[in-house]
Amino acid sequence: MILSTPEDLTVRISELSRASGLPVATIKYYIREDLLHAGRATAPNQADYDESHLRRLRLVRVMLELGELSVASARAVVAALGDDELPLHSLLGIAHHALGPDIKEDAPSDDVRRARADVDDYLERLGWRVSAGAPSRRALAGALVALRRLGRDADPAVFAPYARAADYLAPLELATIPPDLPRSDAIERVIVGTVVFEAALVALRRLAQEHHSARAGNSVT
Amino acid sequence: MILSTPEDLTVRISELSRASGLPVATIKYYIREDLLHAGRATAPNQADYDESHLRRLRLVRVMLELGELSVASARAVVAALGDDELPLHSLLGIAHHALGPDIKEDAPSDDVRRARADVDDYLERLGWRVSAGAPSRRALAGALVALRRLGRDADPAVFAPYARAADYLAPLELATIPPDLPRSDAIERVIVGTVVFEAALVALRRLAQEHHSARAGNSVT
Repeated sequence: MILSTPEDLTVRISELSRASGLPVATIKYYIREDLLHAGRATAPNQADYDESHLRRLRLVRVMLELGELSVASARAVVAALGDDELPLHSLLGIAHHALGPDIKEDAPSDDVRRARADVDDYLERLGWRVSAGAPSRRALAGALVALRRLGRDADPAVFAPYARAADYLAPLELATIPPDLPRSDAIERVIVGTVVFEAALVALRRLAQEHHSARAGNSVT
Repeated sequence: MILSTPEDLTVRISELSRASGLPVATIKYYIREDLLHAGRATAPNQADYDESHLRRLRLVRVMLELGELSVASARAVVAALGDDELPLHSLLGIAHHALGPDIKEDAPSDDVRRARADVDDYLERLGWRVSAGAPSRRALAGALVALRRLGRDADPAVFAPYARAADYLAPLELATIPPDLPRSDAIERVIVGTVVFEAALVALRRLAQEHHSARAGNSVT
């Protein structure tokens, strides 16, 4: 119980500010931007807030600060949270889409188009079932284009070790969402998993590189 | 041979622009910002450029566009490239530092300090040798703080699967830099490896999640 009150008790905005560590002005801004549901009005200029507001504030903060989402992208995720009809799997897609690179579509150059087709083939060879519009397909194609523009004759198979690592992680990650978890908790885990553990993975990869490079004794100078 | 000329031949800035796909104004901007070495002056307002300029332009583009480095951070990497005394292992640290999150240091809160100490302990338990100032230590601590602020009683051991994946990848990644590779090529691989394959790993993790989530048949709704 984070607010130290039973579920049915409520607090004023000043107390919500203290509990969340966010200024009152920021909380009001989030409400105006549809990132946070309004409190229950108790008087013309007064409202009460409960545990659900505190949870949402923490989630919004993770999206904006750690995930570096735009307000518009975070709003899209929040809107999806409110849709009880949406299966969790679809919400995963929406979270990925909001987090995904915002790739302009006007006129992809020939090498970008070729790289996208190569990535599509590669994912099919892996036997991975992913939606045709997944932004991560484009992000992966972007990495392939970068390699080729740097003069490397890169085949998507160059990504094989990373695909193996991802294939090892994904089932473990999904297993942290037990089927009997309440929907709101499950949804939070999906978003936290995407944002927080991605940051952790990136950090650990660099730390491991430094460790193994040190072990190799700086042999390349 | 990317410019289709022998190494000792040179080209004007207009041809460098065509070969790199970058506007002349951008190339001049990079020179002013010390991201690109000047051409060899052939007349008061004219200079010749060679293969080294084209290679550097491609690298700068990867850093700024895919790596989303600031100009100042990219300049730090470029300055390190010019230092022939620097061992490759140090350059890995400099590239990571430039790419790392720019975490403010004025007054870390208690929970941030605690998370940093916990991450330091965790890395020691793993037996990883990484410099005390590595920005990735702080990035990992940031992920731990986020989990705890979301109300999870998180121990750094929650990162174990990611550490295993990183430990699997790092030796494979370092092996792509053979000891007899010319230094300039080795350096390029370090930076490309950090930026491009990180983007690929992040994309593949999300694709693998979508695949395994689809296989699980959206059981959580």
